[in-house]
Amino acid sequence: MDSDPAGRDGDQALADAMERAHDPARVLALSDGVFAIIITLLVLDVRVPELGQGQALADALREIRPSLTAFVISFILAGMYWVSHRDLFGQIRRTDRGLVWLNILYLLPLCLLPFAASLLGRHDRDPVALRIYGLTLVAIAVMRVAIWLYATNRTQLLWVRLDERQRRVGLALTLVPGIVYLVAIAVADVAPTVSLAIFAGLPVLYFLSITVLRRGSTGRREFVNFT
Amino acid sequence: MDSDPAGRDGDQALADAMERAHDPARVLALSDGVFAIIITLLVLDVRVPELGQGQALADALREIRPSLTAFVISFILAGMYWVSHRDLFGQIRRTDRGLVWLNILYLLPLCLLPFAASLLGRHDRDPVALRIYGLTLVAIAVMRVAIWLYATNRTQLLWVRLDERQRRVGLALTLVPGIVYLVAIAVADVAPTVSLAIFAGLPVLYFLSITVLRRGSTGRREFVNFT
Amino acid sequence: MDSDPAGRDGDQALADAMERAHDPARVLALSDGVFAIIITLLVLDVRVPELGQGQALADALREIRPSLTAFVISFILAGMYWVSHRDLFGQIRRTDRGLVWLNILYLLPLCLLPFAASLLGRHDRDPVALRIYGLTLVAIAVMRVAIWLYATNRTQLLWVRLDERQRRVGLALTLVPGIVYLVAIAVADVAPTVSLAIFAGLPVLYFLSITVLRRGSTGRREFVNFT
Amino acid sequence: MDSDPAGRDGDQALADAMERAHDPARVLALSDGVFAIIITLLVLDVRVPELGQGQALADALREIRPSLTAFVISFILAGMYWVSHRDLFGQIRRTDRGLVWLNILYLLPLCLLPFAASLLGRHDRDPVALRIYGLTLVAIAVMRVAIWLYATNRTQLLWVRLDERQRRVGLALTLVPGIVYLVAIAVADVAPTVSLAIFAGLPVLYFLSITVLRRGSTGRREFVNFT
Repeated sequence: MDSDPAGRDGDQALADAMERAHDPARVLALSDGVFAIIITLLVLDVRVPELGQGQALADALREIRPSLTAFVISFILAGMYWVSHRDLFGQIRRTDRGLVWLNILYLLPLCLLPFAASLLGRHDRDPVALRIYGLTLVAIAVMRVAIWLYATNRTQLLWVRLDERQRRVGLALTLVPGIVYLVAIAVADVAPTVSLAIFAGLPVLYFLSITVLRRGSTGRREFVNFT
Repeated sequence: MDSDPAGRDGDQALADAMERAHDPARVLALSDGVFAIIITLLVLDVRVPELGQGQALADALREIRPSLTAFVISFILAGMYWVSHRDLFGQIRRTDRGLVWLNILYLLPLCLLPFAASLLGRHDRDPVALRIYGLTLVAIAVMRVAIWLYATNRTQLLWVRLDERQRRVGLALTLVPGIVYLVAIAVADVAPTVSLAIFAGLPVLYFLSITVLRRGSTGRREFVNFT
Repeated sequence: MDSDPAGRDGDQALADAMERAHDPARVLALSDGVFAIIITLLVLDVRVPELGQGQALADALREIRPSLTAFVISFILAGMYWVSHRDLFGQIRRTDRGLVWLNILYLLPLCLLPFAASLLGRHDRDPVALRIYGLTLVAIAVMRVAIWLYATNRTQLLWVRLDERQRRVGLALTLVPGIVYLVAIAVADVAPTVSLAIFAGLPVLYFLSITVLRRGSTGRREFVNFT
Repeated sequence: MDSDPAGRDGDQALADAMERAHDPARVLALSDGVFAIIITLLVLDVRVPELGQGQALADALREIRPSLTAFVISFILAGMYWVSHRDLFGQIRRTDRGLVWLNILYLLPLCLLPFAASLLGRHDRDPVALRIYGLTLVAIAVMRVAIWLYATNRTQLLWVRLDERQRRVGLALTLVPGIVYLVAIAVADVAPTVSLAIFAGLPVLYFLSITVLRRGSTGRREFVNFT
């Protein structure tokens, strides 16, 4: 530090360098790029069928129904995850090495979502498909919990400090679906239909709970950030 | 609110948090990513043909003509939708939960456009292909109408408040093609050629009507935003 | 106009609305997305070969050489086009409807570049492949000329007005390769090797001419923008 | 220059034009797009297997294990390269023609990473696969060294000038893994297992060395930029 041409200007330069190094802009650019690709990826699986001899187009199209279902499922799910990601990073002012890597490791199971949804679309009562699908969702939930705990525990990374209650509400919003997914995985072998119903029903539950939370928070500050 | 360390600074912090939560930046980043992928997606379908024995390249290339046609059609259409999306969001200053989700649900049928165009490129007189193509365009139109009504009805989301006449012009620009597409779907069975002509002719019509509207609006404010 | 709550504030609001409507940000976001996809698209064609019985991996890899060559060719070309696009839009302050559409129509032949390069990589002496490759490059050159003439002719779209000489230099930089490509197309039938040599040699020529122009322009303003 | 309407305003306009021409924004946008695509590209290779007669899904899924392994490997590696790229460009204030092209040439071997990882995932003891994988990583390291030397040698491109020691530390962080990869390539023929162990172990080493460097640099300025 002594050999530095520093003084007050040097300190300012250092502060600026710190701000640049912690700017979340590129973290968001990478994440949005990955989300955009995931959202459109499965359409590649929805292929125009080749017509066999004497086969009508309408019949041939029946074959693409599973891949179309898988596309819609992962589209909605990826949309939900993107909205949550946007909510979360809307609270984050600076990133650090830990947060950058947690975000990359969050994108990893997310990228597997189209594969898992495609598997479920074609084998919707097979316990193996149900378990792989569930594990993907659990992995995403685990990473979201990790990011939430990491970021909210470091005041310097946030725009506004959250109090204990806000942290717990945010944690519950991610943890509860994760635990429900674990239940769905556990019953996949004995009751695949129950398992499937849980996977199909949880997004609905998510919308309802967010809506209820927002209704109940009129005049309360802690929920204004959950858009 | 009482337990808050707030006062005037707290109010300012809350206002800043609101602005951040409603910043449309990432909504546009996701949408532009999806548009860029859709625009380039179908090129993946235009594959270099393997030459059969004694087959000239020129003959083999004839096989890729349908996928090339499908690529050009969806490219132009996606370009048109992107320009409209840019026009619309050029008027939007803030997003809220509803608008964010309407935009995601708008991207859903948009992602199916390459598939529908590919289907039409290969079976251009088949009523089933014509109907699927038409339904995709109708779904996009429905979502655009929903976004337009939602956004223009909420002054706080806009840069400039629109009056009743501007709202109706914007609505008509989306609603009219949607209705024409419904007609094209209805006649697909009895007159596939008419149906095809409508799908081919409507983009031309769109360009003409925008141009006429812009010509007619010299000195009138309501159309300056339709670039 | 009379019913407007306007006056000076209304005028300011109108001016702001004009700026927003002509902001090139999303045009660049879409273009960069398309460029990124084109640059990475052909790697999808470079597939890991399945080993036949008793076949060594080294032999099997020989089969992917054409697709690897095609990937490198289109990567370098797309890189060149991206740099030019960045140079061009570095001069543009505002976009209008015409420029937005010219840019979209420029992206159309650009998206076909991976296909044309792939064709050339596999049939590098076939006149049909040479002609398709040449036509793609000519179409890109035509669109670049159109954008250059359109933008430089509209002072309100530029950061700095260009004089006649600067416009002509910029025009020549795009027009000359376009004409050379036409020659390469014309001789594809009688002398495919010459045609191939032109396609391979022109990027080298481009680098040299830019470098010479930049060397010669020390202290001259017109070339500082060609980075 | 004499024919210019210039004077002080002209000089300012020229300075502004220079800043615009050297703005790194689009270089980062292109790079982030390419990284996002590379990160998600290999998921396309993880395909849902078609079930043969009497084959259980669990068995069929065993076939996709190599492509899944390849996906995870390239995901983590691409993540590491993206973090490094972000660190490096966090120090860069302006780009010039040389840096723009070095960055494009850096993206070239990066795009081959999914292919090389896929090759390694399927033939993890084959010297040919090990060598191709190693060469890809060496090419990436070479380009990173080139960018580092080029940028840190040009003070006008940086936010803060680096002293000789900082330059050497940055160089070593890229050069050392590059040399280790060369060793792994050299022993691929005689000891493929050692070669594989090096490729698997180096990312771990990288994390450790960065962590040690950061620990050791408490109160020392030169490492604050390596997040």
